[in-house]
Amino acid sequence: MHAITIPEPGGPEALVWDEVPDPVAGEGEVLVEVVAGAVNRADILQRQGFYDPPPGASPYPGLECSGRVAALGPGVSGWTVGDEVCALLSGGGYAEKVAIPAGQLLPVPKGVDLKKAAALPEVVCTVWSNVFMIAHLRPGETLLVHGGSSGIGTMAIQLAKAVGAKVAVTAGTREKLEQCAELGADILINYREQDFVAEVKKATDGAGADVILDNMGAKYLDRNVQTLAVNGRLAIIGMQGGIKGELNIAALLGKRAAISATSLRARPLTEKAAIVAAVREHVWPLLDAGHVRPVVDRELPMDDAAAAHRVVEESGHVGKVLLVVP
Amino acid sequence: MHAITIPEPGGPEALVWDEVPDPVAGEGEVLVEVVAGAVNRADILQRQGFYDPPPGASPYPGLECSGRVAALGPGVSGWTVGDEVCALLSGGGYAEKVAIPAGQLLPVPKGVDLKKAAALPEVVCTVWSNVFMIAHLRPGETLLVHGGSSGIGTMAIQLAKAVGAKVAVTAGTREKLEQCAELGADILINYREQDFVAEVKKATDGAGADVILDNMGAKYLDRNVQTLAVNGRLAIIGMQGGIKGELNIAALLGKRAAISATSLRARPLTEKAAIVAAVREHVWPLLDAGHVRPVVDRELPMDDAAAAHRVVEESGHVGKVLLVVP
Repeated sequence: MHAITIPEPGGPEALVWDEVPDPVAGEGEVLVEVVAGAVNRADILQRQGFYDPPPGASPYPGLECSGRVAALGPGVSGWTVGDEVCALLSGGGYAEKVAIPAGQLLPVPKGVDLKKAAALPEVVCTVWSNVFMIAHLRPGETLLVHGGSSGIGTMAIQLAKAVGAKVAVTAGTREKLEQCAELGADILINYREQDFVAEVKKATDGAGADVILDNMGAKYLDRNVQTLAVNGRLAIIGMQGGIKGELNIAALLGKRAAISATSLRARPLTEKAAIVAAVREHVWPLLDAGHVRPVVDRELPMDDAAAAHRVVEESGHVGKVLLVVP
Repeated sequence: MHAITIPEPGGPEALVWDEVPDPVAGEGEVLVEVVAGAVNRADILQRQGFYDPPPGASPYPGLECSGRVAALGPGVSGWTVGDEVCALLSGGGYAEKVAIPAGQLLPVPKGVDLKKAAALPEVVCTVWSNVFMIAHLRPGETLLVHGGSSGIGTMAIQLAKAVGAKVAVTAGTREKLEQCAELGADILINYREQDFVAEVKKATDGAGADVILDNMGAKYLDRNVQTLAVNGRLAIIGMQGGIKGELNIAALLGKRAAISATSLRARPLTEKAAIVAAVREHVWPLLDAGHVRPVVDRELPMDDAAAAHRVVEESGHVGKVLLVVP
């Protein structure tokens, strides 16, 4: 088969569509013939040499895909050859075939195009595990999503609205904020022109955000704590603004607030399977019913993954950038 | 009645046993004739002028007491005049009488001396709400308790052992560590001579602590994060080592760990009542059965509260220092 390989870490040109051995479905795994993958920021870090795949994972990038079941490894039940699926991966989504632990497979939701289903697993699992399983966002509460127009952001807006929460978002352009509003965002903050602490406070009668989904890390740490409401929960899933920041513990304690930081890729199989099962139970019905949808910025050919990485690195996109197997 | 007043914030001598008006049990409140109170670090901060009582609370210090029900305010059921009780307070425990929201009262456990019951409410509610309700310590996990010989520490050791957890403690002398061991602590760390990060790692085959109960705040923040296990939870309840510290978000994220910071006093009545109800359900049976006991360092007369504050400020004590109404 073909896959995107990274002979030498570097810029987008480091991604090489090359002939590689076919993967084989091991015990408890399913072999999927990939139709599409999607780009995540972690793929860019991997391309740059900063984020090695966890032990046992495919060496090729790609944390999610959609496609058709091609073969079942020993001990797999519940799936049939030919099933249309999407899946959360530990790597290997930038390829024509990938072997996946059965617990990380999901059916393609009703009414969702098979290719676009590739845009779902990583964002749905990340948002659900952080905003709902860890931070327990409840109806009537306020969620602040940084990077509201990103793949994660567009899904967080929709899921939070679906459970009856109020949603504030930050983004860097008016166009992006308008797209967030179309998805249901209530409070739109242009981080280039406005102070998100003041804007969230103003829009919540001074209360602040009950939950914050943050991809900036250190750069926003102090302001995120300032923005939290009493009993607030800050869920950090990225460190685009640095890894070490000053924490005002008195401010956190005065609000009886909490900070969590997680990544999906490093979780053991049992935790991934538990998240996928929760997502299938709670989010898949919303997708089947059309209340929530994948937001896709564009589709590019997988053999030119470099072009897709450039789009994501320039941050001009809204939602996910797909890689379609040629 | 008499109560400890603070005419001018300052050292221990600022505490004055003075004649003051009797409190009255309002709607939903119970008037308790106090037999004993206990000293908490928050009382020292209040004496120094750094920790004003929350709105509506008694102006006198004292966050817990034991005594007998003297009168019921309107709308109170479940308690009878003469009942022996202990209670979590928002203030006013350093007094002959105190009016208490009924939801903050607890019966004196079987076999516990009425005076010693004053040592229970604050530590039991703090430990239970943080270690169990927020950090969800589970059987087989490891809890690290800083200040293992403090009132909080001695209760945390006992409750964690009662649920089948392994307990590591830090303390500043061999004598204090021996007392922690008698209460069940498994891993004893002299913080003056040993590095708690290395000691906890060594004693857990490199895994680290699943839950840390911390009273030091900024000074220990980075080392606490280093000490956490994967999926670890750091519960901060004090800032004796400062309020602003550098947080290594990458380290937190790599462990999928979380940090919470809380205080009990500032919680609204409904949250206090929920904690007291949980404590009565989960901890009172352990006290009734004698599996867990209040640890009392000494009893001093309430009219000489200054002497008790000196003891706590010198940190030579183990467990709680009681103030007995003369």
